[in-house]
Amino acid sequence: MTDYTSFDIAHLGNVELFTPKFDESLWFFRDLLAMRVVAEDGDSVFLRCWDEYQRYTIKLTASDQAGVGRVTFRASSQEALERRVAAIEASGRGLGWRDGEQGVGPSFAFTDPDGHPMEIYYETERYVATDDKPALKNQASAFPGRGVNARRLDHINYLATSVEDNGEFVRDVLVGRESERIRQDTGKYAAWWFHFQNKSYDIVYSDDWTGHSKRLHHIAFAPDTREDILKAADIFLENGIYIESGPHKHTINQTFFLYVWEPGGNRIEFANAGSRLLLDPDQPVVEWSEEERKKGQAWGMKTIESFHTHGTPLVE
Amino acid sequence: MTDYTSFDIAHLGNVELFTPKFDESLWFFRDLLAMRVVAEDGDSVFLRCWDEYQRYTIKLTASDQAGVGRVTFRASSQEALERRVAAIEASGRGLGWRDGEQGVGPSFAFTDPDGHPMEIYYETERYVATDDKPALKNQASAFPGRGVNARRLDHINYLATSVEDNGEFVRDVLVGRESERIRQDTGKYAAWWFHFQNKSYDIVYSDDWTGHSKRLHHIAFAPDTREDILKAADIFLENGIYIESGPHKHTINQTFFLYVWEPGGNRIEFANAGSRLLLDPDQPVVEWSEEERKKGQAWGMKTIESFHTHGTPLVE
Amino acid sequence: MTDYTSFDIAHLGNVELFTPKFDESLWFFRDLLAMRVVAEDGDSVFLRCWDEYQRYTIKLTASDQAGVGRVTFRASSQEALERRVAAIEASGRGLGWRDGEQGVGPSFAFTDPDGHPMEIYYETERYVATDDKPALKNQASAFPGRGVNARRLDHINYLATSVEDNGEFVRDVLVGRESERIRQDTGKYAAWWFHFQNKSYDIVYSDDWTGHSKRLHHIAFAPDTREDILKAADIFLENGIYIESGPHKHTINQTFFLYVWEPGGNRIEFANAGSRLLLDPDQPVVEWSEEERKKGQAWGMKTIESFHTHGTPLVE
Amino acid sequence: MTDYTSFDIAHLGNVELFTPKFDESLWFFRDLLAMRVVAEDGDSVFLRCWDEYQRYTIKLTASDQAGVGRVTFRASSQEALERRVAAIEASGRGLGWRDGEQGVGPSFAFTDPDGHPMEIYYETERYVATDDKPALKNQASAFPGRGVNARRLDHINYLATSVEDNGEFVRDVLVGRESERIRQDTGKYAAWWFHFQNKSYDIVYSDDWTGHSKRLHHIAFAPDTREDILKAADIFLENGIYIESGPHKHTINQTFFLYVWEPGGNRIEFANAGSRLLLDPDQPVVEWSEEERKKGQAWGMKTIESFHTHGTPLVE
Repeated sequence: MTDYTSFDIAHLGNVELFTPKFDESLWFFRDLLAMRVVAEDGDSVFLRCWDEYQRYTIKLTASDQAGVGRVTFRASSQEALERRVAAIEASGRGLGWRDGEQGVGPSFAFTDPDGHPMEIYYETERYVATDDKPALKNQASAFPGRGVNARRLDHINYLATSVEDNGEFVRDVLVGRESERIRQDTGKYAAWWFHFQNKSYDIVYSDDWTGHSKRLHHIAFAPDTREDILKAADIFLENGIYIESGPHKHTINQTFFLYVWEPGGNRIEFANAGSRLLLDPDQPVVEWSEEERKKGQAWGMKTIESFHTHGTPLVE
Repeated sequence: MTDYTSFDIAHLGNVELFTPKFDESLWFFRDLLAMRVVAEDGDSVFLRCWDEYQRYTIKLTASDQAGVGRVTFRASSQEALERRVAAIEASGRGLGWRDGEQGVGPSFAFTDPDGHPMEIYYETERYVATDDKPALKNQASAFPGRGVNARRLDHINYLATSVEDNGEFVRDVLVGRESERIRQDTGKYAAWWFHFQNKSYDIVYSDDWTGHSKRLHHIAFAPDTREDILKAADIFLENGIYIESGPHKHTINQTFFLYVWEPGGNRIEFANAGSRLLLDPDQPVVEWSEEERKKGQAWGMKTIESFHTHGTPLVE
Repeated sequence: MTDYTSFDIAHLGNVELFTPKFDESLWFFRDLLAMRVVAEDGDSVFLRCWDEYQRYTIKLTASDQAGVGRVTFRASSQEALERRVAAIEASGRGLGWRDGEQGVGPSFAFTDPDGHPMEIYYETERYVATDDKPALKNQASAFPGRGVNARRLDHINYLATSVEDNGEFVRDVLVGRESERIRQDTGKYAAWWFHFQNKSYDIVYSDDWTGHSKRLHHIAFAPDTREDILKAADIFLENGIYIESGPHKHTINQTFFLYVWEPGGNRIEFANAGSRLLLDPDQPVVEWSEEERKKGQAWGMKTIESFHTHGTPLVE
Repeated sequence: MTDYTSFDIAHLGNVELFTPKFDESLWFFRDLLAMRVVAEDGDSVFLRCWDEYQRYTIKLTASDQAGVGRVTFRASSQEALERRVAAIEASGRGLGWRDGEQGVGPSFAFTDPDGHPMEIYYETERYVATDDKPALKNQASAFPGRGVNARRLDHINYLATSVEDNGEFVRDVLVGRESERIRQDTGKYAAWWFHFQNKSYDIVYSDDWTGHSKRLHHIAFAPDTREDILKAADIFLENGIYIESGPHKHTINQTFFLYVWEPGGNRIEFANAGSRLLLDPDQPVVEWSEEERKKGQAWGMKTIESFHTHGTPLVE
């Protein structure tokens, strides 16, 4: 049995997103989400949420197709990094060390079984605010006071050809702890939720119905309140952003949610967990059946069909 | 340097409160906070918050004076418990093993340097809902839908004759991590905040201006939203509960707060942190000067005078 | 052109609801909505919202079938009452004077063209709080601090065989002002919204697809905030009340809404308008086409099918 | 007895504010409140709230001193306008007709007994959105999604040498209806609240402790929710705007409030009334004694001292 007195991975580090509509996607993250551009490099722009202690949150890269690129994880210490790298190498999925970007130190590259590119690192430079100095010094940078004001990145939800294989990799090699899962009548998992510290999830795998690999279901940001998410819906309505589902409350992990598609096609969630944290070191896994899943979301809204037809990159 | 890849203490377990007005205090916790009575034993009643995975949250005990009794901490594992017990014994503050109450397993008793009684345990029974079964099985019991609906205990703030001595005990023996502190011009700490996992604080020490020991500044509960706290203020207004300060936003750790005095005289806080979590394993400590403290709370409200004159038990 | 410098009708007075499950319906209004029982009379119970200045809000009556009984309107003055009574008599829909109930003075009975029973009155006794005295004397009674805490009745939405006939009656005889409407491609109205003072609607007619008459689509209560409505959804979830739709935001009149079915089958809405008021004495009517209506609600949720299949009493 | 079946004044029209720091004040209203500049004229700029049906809300004018200029009221109809003009002329306070600004039609100028300049009009052009077209056509212009997002102007609170004289003028000549008032032990009113339609107040007079005349206590805007006001506090904190008091809940009329001083020195309030409306045509006046006033605001916060020392223009 795995010992969960310690998590070698502290949190999701940052995420690269591909977009075929670079300018519109940049407008979405910068102007509608109020993220700050901190650097540009070739076809990419690096953006940060206002209470991100590291330099950047999202690397947005122009591409033929939407989708997710490299996703990084910050280790809890140098020793934790070394432990995880050893485990990854032992799993045969290691790709070797490389330099991190934008203040991120040495990063060890690998892939999950589905082939999604990942890296793990420990060293990182803290963001130094300039004209965005916060009024309170226990905050990374000034509260923007516009748009969705996303405080921080929350989680990533991958699509994968095998939820089991990828979930087991997170559980056994990255040592994430499962919080909830959906088990189909066939015994196969439809989705599997994992977390690293007290948040109820940081990384999720859902079944890719197309059989393709390396695809993204969504990434999520965490505003502070449910009212922020209601306001976000108004902002997306006014700006012609496709609202796919919500605001509503998830049955699984009980997060209050809103899903939209950014102009490049990637699904973006805004999620709020209230004061719900997984403080229990022995938190039992919650498993949902196919029958239970049919009840829809917490307040009865049916899960939208496109949750099972839309992922990025788009495939036939 | 302490390694914070792991916390041997998972969270504050439960708190015993003394009250000279037992019936009125019971009404406050049961009827106004919507806590559920799970057991009675002699002069004590055990009450729980609706999303507490353990059996109880607060033990309320009739007494001559208000104040705080035994406070417990849950260890992250059996090994973590043993490590902390060894450290406590080495500190000379250990008092030996005793049986826990209400499903709590073997508990090791000790005191902090101020003399506050504490215990640490690992084994605990999960609460089994009966007529309070929740609609969603990832919740400990049904949402009460009345009163303040406090989801869970959040933190305890002790008064102590020496903030330094007690803070160092938490830091070195319990291995809590400091998040913020106030340093007076004299160099002495006026208050010191510690946390065990991702919450920004679980245990706090403030200077006891009276020179007495073993006193309480307040305990806090965590409702889900700031609106819950605004509604709580209306509920306390209607029920004649003394509202001491708030709703407002703390500068330190940025929690949205409301302070009231329960009928027995103990100060009770309702606190909401939004989506702010300390995810960074290297989070630097934030230190506030006497000068900065004079600015009051985040939105400018002066810190109320009685914060520095009222504690329990009351002293001359 | 009608002169809207004055409204002879001040507001919806109170509503009688029929229920085939009296005890369960009473539990819904009293325990879940936190309405107070002020009187009982035969098969009926009178309940009030906490900030209702009159004695009661809802008369709940045991019956074979769900549905709506007598609905009353309070006139703005004795002269206004007399003007409206004269107009109603001239329309041929008057039924004569009767005594009001529970402090309501002389009431003139009539029906709308669909046959829904209505009354208009001016004299009314103010509610005198006893053990529910509010802390602030500018409030009718104490804030209950439990359940949905519905502040006041908001509006009624009837079903009718002819939206036009009934709407014209409200417009011409009761002198309500239209705020919004849906016009089908055939030219017929699918729904028509009317208001008496600054609220954007008080009485609505929707097309009864069954061809039956005297039926109810829903009545609505006004909690103070959108968060109240989110909390209401949790309360209904925990208590097994069928949540039909929402929380979401209406396109029409932009109210934030939640629809549930009380145990007797009547549809109940909880609606919040924020700070949106119709202050303009010349507010133009907003007309929506069938095409626009297909876009669903404000944030994109499709209007639920049962909005066009469920009304009370139920018919084949 | 005045007949309140009809209000000849529909609502506060718009307000001219003077500022000795024009650029900073413009930044406050345009950038922090998200008001839109619709016209410039000499030393003045006209700005509008996003759901204002008329062209503008505030006329900001450079001046030596802060303070309030001309305040306008929209009549409910042409006849209502003529009735009020006749009454004003009869009171001896009329100054004659002049052209309105920015789409406002013929306006009749007058002063209240304190000498504050006022105008009344009926004709007005509706705002035509261009690049700020709203997604929903029942809204005046697009929701800005930044800053305080103030929906509309709410009320004005004047200082006056005689609360009684000015209040009687509003009551008898403008035919506003009193909602609440504070009566000092001497019998004199300290403040008097008046409303025109369902809002609980539109115009207020408070005692000017300096004996000067024509001064302003504050003007208020109405965001949609209490959360908007909490967010506003964060925005003002980050932008160095002086927060004078709140967020908190008023005892009088129960509005949730936040007071700041815009850079020019004028006090600006953000107020939310929830779903509280004065629907009762016979609403009794609520009078508060000096003793009651000492209890402070609804949740116990003492009324800030500067409420009785700061007004604009500043005087010795």
